[in-house]
Amino acid sequence: MKSKVVTLNSEIHDQMQAIGRKARAAYIIMAEATNAQKDAALVHAAMAIRDNADKILAANEKDIEYGTLKKLDSAQLERLTLDKKRIEGMAAGLETVVTLPDPVNKKLDEWERPNGLVLQRVSIPLGVIGIIYEARPGVTSDAAALSLKAGNAAILRCGSESLHSSQAIVACLHAGLKAAKLPVDAVQLVPTRDRAAVGEMLTMTGLIDIIVPRGGKSLTKRVMEESRIPTIQHLDGNCHTYIHKKADKDMAVAVLMNAKMRRVSICGATESLLIDETIAKTFLPALAEALSKAGCEMRGDDASRKIDKRIKKASDEDWDTEYLAPIISIKLVKDLDEAIDHVNRHGSHHTDAIITTDMKAARSFLRKVDSAIVMHNASTQFADGGEFGFGAEIGISTGRLHARGPVGAEQLTTYKYVIYGNGQTRA
Amino acid sequence: MKSKVVTLNSEIHDQMQAIGRKARAAYIIMAEATNAQKDAALVHAAMAIRDNADKILAANEKDIEYGTLKKLDSAQLERLTLDKKRIEGMAAGLETVVTLPDPVNKKLDEWERPNGLVLQRVSIPLGVIGIIYEARPGVTSDAAALSLKAGNAAILRCGSESLHSSQAIVACLHAGLKAAKLPVDAVQLVPTRDRAAVGEMLTMTGLIDIIVPRGGKSLTKRVMEESRIPTIQHLDGNCHTYIHKKADKDMAVAVLMNAKMRRVSICGATESLLIDETIAKTFLPALAEALSKAGCEMRGDDASRKIDKRIKKASDEDWDTEYLAPIISIKLVKDLDEAIDHVNRHGSHHTDAIITTDMKAARSFLRKVDSAIVMHNASTQFADGGEFGFGAEIGISTGRLHARGPVGAEQLTTYKYVIYGNGQTRA
Repeated sequence: MKSKVVTLNSEIHDQMQAIGRKARAAYIIMAEATNAQKDAALVHAAMAIRDNADKILAANEKDIEYGTLKKLDSAQLERLTLDKKRIEGMAAGLETVVTLPDPVNKKLDEWERPNGLVLQRVSIPLGVIGIIYEARPGVTSDAAALSLKAGNAAILRCGSESLHSSQAIVACLHAGLKAAKLPVDAVQLVPTRDRAAVGEMLTMTGLIDIIVPRGGKSLTKRVMEESRIPTIQHLDGNCHTYIHKKADKDMAVAVLMNAKMRRVSICGATESLLIDETIAKTFLPALAEALSKAGCEMRGDDASRKIDKRIKKASDEDWDTEYLAPIISIKLVKDLDEAIDHVNRHGSHHTDAIITTDMKAARSFLRKVDSAIVMHNASTQFADGGEFGFGAEIGISTGRLHARGPVGAEQLTTYKYVIYGNGQTRA
Repeated sequence: MKSKVVTLNSEIHDQMQAIGRKARAAYIIMAEATNAQKDAALVHAAMAIRDNADKILAANEKDIEYGTLKKLDSAQLERLTLDKKRIEGMAAGLETVVTLPDPVNKKLDEWERPNGLVLQRVSIPLGVIGIIYEARPGVTSDAAALSLKAGNAAILRCGSESLHSSQAIVACLHAGLKAAKLPVDAVQLVPTRDRAAVGEMLTMTGLIDIIVPRGGKSLTKRVMEESRIPTIQHLDGNCHTYIHKKADKDMAVAVLMNAKMRRVSICGATESLLIDETIAKTFLPALAEALSKAGCEMRGDDASRKIDKRIKKASDEDWDTEYLAPIISIKLVKDLDEAIDHVNRHGSHHTDAIITTDMKAARSFLRKVDSAIVMHNASTQFADGGEFGFGAEIGISTGRLHARGPVGAEQLTTYKYVIYGNGQTRA
């Protein structure tokens, strides 16, 4: 299956094929590794990261220079920049993954058939994982750690601006793998900035089992369009908080403010507030006051604007927009059904919450809203692998297959059926 | 995302889009249906199939005429042809699915976080399933039943030769859905024979959640190459039976004969026999005698041909070939490790078995062979949803994501996280 890209870049093609073959060979050994071995690799990698903090920072300097030349904006440079605290965070992140139970070789199910066959469903590693991400060096260690813990081999393609930092971090992961007598090829970094390497990864069927894009919409879209390999991905996080007529007002304000404003740039941040029209008159002024004080722009429907003049007029697009910024859309709804319908129509099946003291209404919302994560009386910002207890996450899946919601080590596994017989033949 | 096909066939494009929208609307209702309602639909559909057997047979006559004109070969015509017994089999198949537990709204997991949040993982329907299959009318009722039981909406694209039969069967499923007050759009049959409809299905992202191809290699390959929607699929069933040096001879012969010859055309049929060289001299003559008597052609390596002259010379291709015919490849191996390596290199990750009385050797094989189904002392022909206790199957997945092995109603579900709080906000 040669693509145009391949014929134009035979050198990169050969390089990527070699990386893929090395990853497959490493995966076979990783799949057999004990949990103690995998944990030892992570512990030693964390030590190496601490011991080599200066080297990592020096490499990061080079990346920042390059990023400045490439005119990254301040937010991008901020994400790219490492400091002692962030490096310690990476090391601690690896140690958190050590505390997780081994996600593979678990008996997930067992049953016996009338003919005496005993069937087991057993978790195993997913295989070779291709992770494509942007210029956030911390993803390098997080993604590698989760992949390693689940017995996979990872091929990491970092953003071109973070190549030096990522190389320095991968060197520490290699030190950990070596110390645990595991193959260093279990974590490989694509060594070129050439974008053709991404095209290669997306067509390496037979060598890569799954692609995980972690980054902005343009990256995810490219992967969706080009990949011949199954993907775990997340497109939008257009999350809703719906305040039902039987909500507690103080709770509603506290939860909504946290859901919207704790961090506005994460995918679990609430982008849209729905509120029952029967309580809007009493609730909305308090909500608008808090949002306004916190510097959040409000864009609402006409009904909401009649109640609070600070609310600007929302356009049709607003209901479908993931702002990732201090902006919120506000809509009054007739009842629970309209709220559910709005969320299913305009949401992105990521995370949506209802605030209510009415358990019946809550259950209806939780059941009928077709999202990966649905919440009752909690902030949508809890949509996070760490907050779920997964140790870390490689992303949040809004797809319906394989993994939904936060993707941790357990989600980077698959299973096999193991069948025990004593000579059974089929009739 | 308009493809060439779309612009050339705007009528089919519009038709398929309308089918997709109706399916999505039906899915929302199906997801809320009770198990009793879904079972009632299946029971009434089974009744309708029995009551309308003559109509189905008349429709099948038309298909056979068309198939004869199209010069289908005798095996294809055989698969296309219905009779009273096959129609009763369809009705009974629906009733088997009724006996299965409801695969959705099951609490798969539950845990509490230190902050008091209670997290549940709950099974839900997969959504809208596109099933593309060949001219075997029975797939219509099997696939629809499993989809329906799991609360999904199905878009069925049958082989062009079975269109009349499939329409008659779908009419019975509609009667069942109506009787249970469920939307008939939960089971829709693509009403055209135009192949452009398949191209449409494969690009209906946002309307179809998953594509299940069920048919030969050319269909599966087309789907793999063209689909922009995730797929559950199976490519090859190049299954192995490995006879270890500590096998019981009678069991080895009985199991191998069943694995190869019970039905040669199913994907779980053994295609390759591996045997430890230390026992080949005593085991192979008995195996060759049984195979030869049963009319099975044998193609082996030089070592095997020295032991039994009836074995023809195998070419390199034979090790990678799924015959689906009374032919078997035979290879002597040095030991367990060589057998495992051969299976992982040449197999198709479908189903592979070891025959041995040595549990240690068995465990090593079961663990290291990287296939969806691995077996100890049993016939590979047990690779079947019915034999697993799944009631029926829509296919056997050799992919690594979401569903591996037999795909029954449970594999046509996904999950959501439901989180219960009491006002928690994230720090």
